[in-house]
Amino acid sequence: MKLTRRVKEILSWYESDNPGTKANLARILMEGRLGGTGKMVILPVDQGFEHGPARSFAPNPPAYDPHYHFQLAIDAGLNAYAAPLGMLEQGAATFAGAIPTILKMNSSNSLSRGGDAPDQAVTATVADALRLGCSAIGFTIYPGSDAMFDQFEEFRELSAEAKACGLATVLWSYPRGGDLDKDAELAIDISTYAAHMAALLGAHIIKVKLATDHLGNKESKKVYEAKGIARSTQAERVADVMRSAFNGKRLVVFSGGAAKGEDAVFDDARAIRDGGGNGSIIGRNSFQRSREDALALLDRIVRIYQGKE
Amino acid sequence: MKLTRRVKEILSWYESDNPGTKANLARILMEGRLGGTGKMVILPVDQGFEHGPARSFAPNPPAYDPHYHFQLAIDAGLNAYAAPLGMLEQGAATFAGAIPTILKMNSSNSLSRGGDAPDQAVTATVADALRLGCSAIGFTIYPGSDAMFDQFEEFRELSAEAKACGLATVLWSYPRGGDLDKDAELAIDISTYAAHMAALLGAHIIKVKLATDHLGNKESKKVYEAKGIARSTQAERVADVMRSAFNGKRLVVFSGGAAKGEDAVFDDARAIRDGGGNGSIIGRNSFQRSREDALALLDRIVRIYQGKE
Amino acid sequence: MKLTRRVKEILSWYESDNPGTKANLARILMEGRLGGTGKMVILPVDQGFEHGPARSFAPNPPAYDPHYHFQLAIDAGLNAYAAPLGMLEQGAATFAGAIPTILKMNSSNSLSRGGDAPDQAVTATVADALRLGCSAIGFTIYPGSDAMFDQFEEFRELSAEAKACGLATVLWSYPRGGDLDKDAELAIDISTYAAHMAALLGAHIIKVKLATDHLGNKESKKVYEAKGIARSTQAERVADVMRSAFNGKRLVVFSGGAAKGEDAVFDDARAIRDGGGNGSIIGRNSFQRSREDALALLDRIVRIYQGKE
Amino acid sequence: MKLTRRVKEILSWYESDNPGTKANLARILMEGRLGGTGKMVILPVDQGFEHGPARSFAPNPPAYDPHYHFQLAIDAGLNAYAAPLGMLEQGAATFAGAIPTILKMNSSNSLSRGGDAPDQAVTATVADALRLGCSAIGFTIYPGSDAMFDQFEEFRELSAEAKACGLATVLWSYPRGGDLDKDAELAIDISTYAAHMAALLGAHIIKVKLATDHLGNKESKKVYEAKGIARSTQAERVADVMRSAFNGKRLVVFSGGAAKGEDAVFDDARAIRDGGGNGSIIGRNSFQRSREDALALLDRIVRIYQGKE
Amino acid sequence: MKLTRRVKEILSWYESDNPGTKANLARILMEGRLGGTGKMVILPVDQGFEHGPARSFAPNPPAYDPHYHFQLAIDAGLNAYAAPLGMLEQGAATFAGAIPTILKMNSSNSLSRGGDAPDQAVTATVADALRLGCSAIGFTIYPGSDAMFDQFEEFRELSAEAKACGLATVLWSYPRGGDLDKDAELAIDISTYAAHMAALLGAHIIKVKLATDHLGNKESKKVYEAKGIARSTQAERVADVMRSAFNGKRLVVFSGGAAKGEDAVFDDARAIRDGGGNGSIIGRNSFQRSREDALALLDRIVRIYQGKE
Repeated sequence: MKLTRRVKEILSWYESDNPGTKANLARILMEGRLGGTGKMVILPVDQGFEHGPARSFAPNPPAYDPHYHFQLAIDAGLNAYAAPLGMLEQGAATFAGAIPTILKMNSSNSLSRGGDAPDQAVTATVADALRLGCSAIGFTIYPGSDAMFDQFEEFRELSAEAKACGLATVLWSYPRGGDLDKDAELAIDISTYAAHMAALLGAHIIKVKLATDHLGNKESKKVYEAKGIARSTQAERVADVMRSAFNGKRLVVFSGGAAKGEDAVFDDARAIRDGGGNGSIIGRNSFQRSREDALALLDRIVRIYQGKE
Repeated sequence: MKLTRRVKEILSWYESDNPGTKANLARILMEGRLGGTGKMVILPVDQGFEHGPARSFAPNPPAYDPHYHFQLAIDAGLNAYAAPLGMLEQGAATFAGAIPTILKMNSSNSLSRGGDAPDQAVTATVADALRLGCSAIGFTIYPGSDAMFDQFEEFRELSAEAKACGLATVLWSYPRGGDLDKDAELAIDISTYAAHMAALLGAHIIKVKLATDHLGNKESKKVYEAKGIARSTQAERVADVMRSAFNGKRLVVFSGGAAKGEDAVFDDARAIRDGGGNGSIIGRNSFQRSREDALALLDRIVRIYQGKE
Repeated sequence: MKLTRRVKEILSWYESDNPGTKANLARILMEGRLGGTGKMVILPVDQGFEHGPARSFAPNPPAYDPHYHFQLAIDAGLNAYAAPLGMLEQGAATFAGAIPTILKMNSSNSLSRGGDAPDQAVTATVADALRLGCSAIGFTIYPGSDAMFDQFEEFRELSAEAKACGLATVLWSYPRGGDLDKDAELAIDISTYAAHMAALLGAHIIKVKLATDHLGNKESKKVYEAKGIARSTQAERVADVMRSAFNGKRLVVFSGGAAKGEDAVFDDARAIRDGGGNGSIIGRNSFQRSREDALALLDRIVRIYQGKE
Repeated sequence: MKLTRRVKEILSWYESDNPGTKANLARILMEGRLGGTGKMVILPVDQGFEHGPARSFAPNPPAYDPHYHFQLAIDAGLNAYAAPLGMLEQGAATFAGAIPTILKMNSSNSLSRGGDAPDQAVTATVADALRLGCSAIGFTIYPGSDAMFDQFEEFRELSAEAKACGLATVLWSYPRGGDLDKDAELAIDISTYAAHMAALLGAHIIKVKLATDHLGNKESKKVYEAKGIARSTQAERVADVMRSAFNGKRLVVFSGGAAKGEDAVFDDARAIRDGGGNGSIIGRNSFQRSREDALALLDRIVRIYQGKE
Repeated sequence: MKLTRRVKEILSWYESDNPGTKANLARILMEGRLGGTGKMVILPVDQGFEHGPARSFAPNPPAYDPHYHFQLAIDAGLNAYAAPLGMLEQGAATFAGAIPTILKMNSSNSLSRGGDAPDQAVTATVADALRLGCSAIGFTIYPGSDAMFDQFEEFRELSAEAKACGLATVLWSYPRGGDLDKDAELAIDISTYAAHMAALLGAHIIKVKLATDHLGNKESKKVYEAKGIARSTQAERVADVMRSAFNGKRLVVFSGGAAKGEDAVFDDARAIRDGGGNGSIIGRNSFQRSREDALALLDRIVRIYQGKE
């Protein structure tokens, strides 16, 4: 498989990583219909853990079956499929070699106090990732929460072990908890901070939510206003996140949050593309529709990243 | 021992497991009067840890003797016997090879604060399970409790080690503690969530309680009502749990909770059977009766799963 | 599975073993058409390693396929199937739980100097036995050879690890090499010595060749003649071996060596039965015939051990 | 990447392996111009270790550069590239993800006594294979040599560790040393024996040399002649080797030995194809020609395996 | 590189350290325009973690790129560059050997409760420092805070491991939290206490903030006043800190806190020099200016330490 010039350039940014990790990043970047472009669409299915099976799968009952998601990601020509241990175990042999997988190592759940405890349990090991043939491990941190320091340290351990084994790391960085109110969680200054900390923690691929133009921290608000950092359009905010990810030298993918209308999803993808982001992670917006609708939606998103729409 | 087509089909769902684990699952599924049908009745005796010996065994004093339970499970033609370390140690040699055993790895007890602390101590090791000739390890989690994140991580460690040694895992998933009130603990939306998390954690056999038609979480309540997910009969609720266990690709057994009337027990078994569940775990309802009564009761339950009643 | 009185008696002789090892011995003793009788017929297929594939399998080409042997052992109602790592790996998942397996841990081969080097390589681990769901490990020693001290120590290590994990051990004890000439290798005094050393080394099941009435050692010859130890019939010699195996308190199975006529095979089985031996290991004499012939031959051997012929 | 039906069938033969190992086998089988056909051409460059740099690379000086070989394998559309530690280290980052690599773990060299010692040093670790992003480890055994028992045991250790980490194993099995004369080393009965032992040792991909119709062992000679095992054409001999590799259920690739004329190389490939072999390993015959000549030669070999020539 | 007499003298103070650690201290002391003088200027860039990317880098956007800081430190002729994991990973290969690096092991962040939680997460390992070729690890403690005891113990672990591996340690010691008010944090008696504890904890290089003449503790206030310890000038206070660092036998570098006017920065440097301090750590005051301005500022600071201004 000849790597494209663009993928080689991206790999060159990961200059301290071993060839094993680079090869796994290359596998993700070269897979599917966006293979070789430096853009990615990843299917994550950890909502069963986060919100329970009914909220996750009842809207599209075939999605109760773990094989459904492997097949959807393959048929839609996506770059990778991310899920917790049990979901991968139930399909990893059938789909071995068919699509890069990301083992989601920690998960929260909405049975915790308040339905929303900003903590997670680590539910898998790097050895699991190797035996299941995964290309990367995935981990979630909640910057701002009281648990964040522990989470950073859990990631440090898992990440060091994963890198030594030639695996890549994907870090979901979601500001949440502590002093952050709901507006602050999606504020652009907080979001860029979350992306930057993920980069500092050594993540290879960073996942953040699309931000609003709100400013959540009074110190950084001064800087944004003094320097006139552009944030009125979504594309500008994506560009601001990319800058915060080592001036664009770390891969960043974005999610739009809860399921929403198709046009909003397409607008998001165009903004990510135009702002220089590396792509989308689309969970509920894909697997909670019928398979045909999901394939049609993912097809348009892929075409947007291909610059065709 | 020739495996039946049904057992081979079930084993095929455990596609990432090694032949050792598959062999132990086969041993449980091929044992006893239900051997080969894909249905199971398991005898668990950990109530001594949970409620103390008087509450557990005084109603039927021969049950103070660990051998009593091995013999009961064998004579009733059950699939497996589950108990804590000491109970198995006191009979494992006498009954070696006579019935598959499940080493219950953690246990709560009613001397804890409030008599009901939603936490457990891990009281055995995977090495114990091997030296005692067990086919599986058993573990309890309390989704919803403050201890759940730690419990998930304890299971992660034990489960990874057990799987590498060719053992199977049985996960008791009992919503409890935290924000959950008594009604929520048995609510169908919470119960399916508990079953799903057990599957995500990589359990081979999942044990939940039979659920009520109550909905305990306001977010999932919306989904249940919007989608009209059937939950008025016990069989419908069992079917809902099975769907949540990877669309029926993970074995799930059910318990009915506290000791109750025989008719209620038989109705439960029919509902489990008709809803597609894989069987029953029956502790107090069997060993707290006289031996003859228990054998008669278990005989009828087995006959129900055989479709004869 | 209710153990028979006879199997329980046999297990009682292994009084220092843990319940896991007893359970695995029980599995072997309770399997197949001889299950529960204390007699065993085991299919070993390591001749490919010992003599190469053409000599082993060309007489019956379907036997080139590893699945053939699993299926033969199951269909013939045998107690266990023994083979080296690769042979078990290629069928262990398909036949998980269908027949107890013995992982042959070391193997010689006829490409060694003289075609017959009295040494072996250890080609598998106890961890392999666990992940493949084996009931026992198998090992070969060559009492008399220069390599024997090393072999004893290799067995010590593997055996200690296997026992701690609840596995049983099967020890092939073949006098060979050193000062032993060809006659001595099969001499009754040497053969009983080989069986006794295997018992002393802690083996659970001992495998020796049927002996001749030759006496290979001048010191023991004096004793045999002075005490008039009976050795003229094969049954007497089997009885002598059993006595040497802790007065019959260790399981001993016998092989007849190279492929030979059916009547000789049946005579051997009757002698083993009448001398109190525990059964036969029959490799080449079964799988080098056509499947129908092998099934017919094994059927008669089983019937002989059942006392029907 | 959708796997072909043929590749899925091949993966099903590796039934005891974890999904990680299956994924790496799939990567090799799906790569290059033969991707998906079940046929493979692999480029091995360990001759520098075996014969020194001048004998290996002076015929085509650009081949002194490790990058040359990665690029050749990629440009020729081969399935994998195999080399010792240093060769892979000098190119693994540049070509990360561009072609599956096999880390050759042991190597002989011609500075040993006699220039031809039938032994090897283990020069890399499984951790090296992971950090370099390799899909498999490679190992050489010399059946027949005095070193073979040690080699088998070295492979046992490396192989168990590699399999647990989700890597595949490639075993070079070259009869050599001990009682084997030069004719015997390539004799068909010895070659099938070598292939069979590699399968028994648990190798996923077996590499042997194309055999002559000579019979090197007097015992197996009898069987070949008695059974009339076809061996007069190279295709018949390839078929005999495949039978010996678990009746074709293990992947076997062949080499033709020393550099030779193009027509002989093409005839070899047709015989491998027609005999049911899985492909060629072509070292000296490719990299000791100019790059254009090598690409032309490899193109024709690929076309032969595609059935076009 | 011949070490100067002054550097040899400094190294002699670290008499219990192994030659590896001494070599790394020597690398830092011999690097750049101050190489050999015993004076140092170090560039730290961990403000992205502490204050977020906008507050840190928006004032000088090229600073979003990790390579910018390596290049700035090299071009300015500084002694070392200190940063968290991700920042070093993104440049360590490109600038390997070009400048000594210090891996900052823990970091706080302003999303924590109050924007200012006196705790930190450990986000890197000593193994990371070795693989990235660092000369030292850096760590921050907050004497006075509730977290300090944990922090001391974290440092103990990391420091022991680092020293065993021949790395040097740099300890940021910032009084903060607990009973300390804002004035006390910079008080001279508290500052000397902080420097002394760092020395006691075994740090090789100590980093404190320049102190005020305030006295923060009533007990030490009595002593300062009774003994008339000079503290009215900054140079006197630096001298007091140096005395507290084993009478000057530990290297101490100073920072001035928030970005400020150039003259104040130069005055600080002269005070450090005149008080016998070992140099400056200058982060925001350098990288938040344009590159030319930063180079000009650093040039004057270096000249001050050279005694030229």
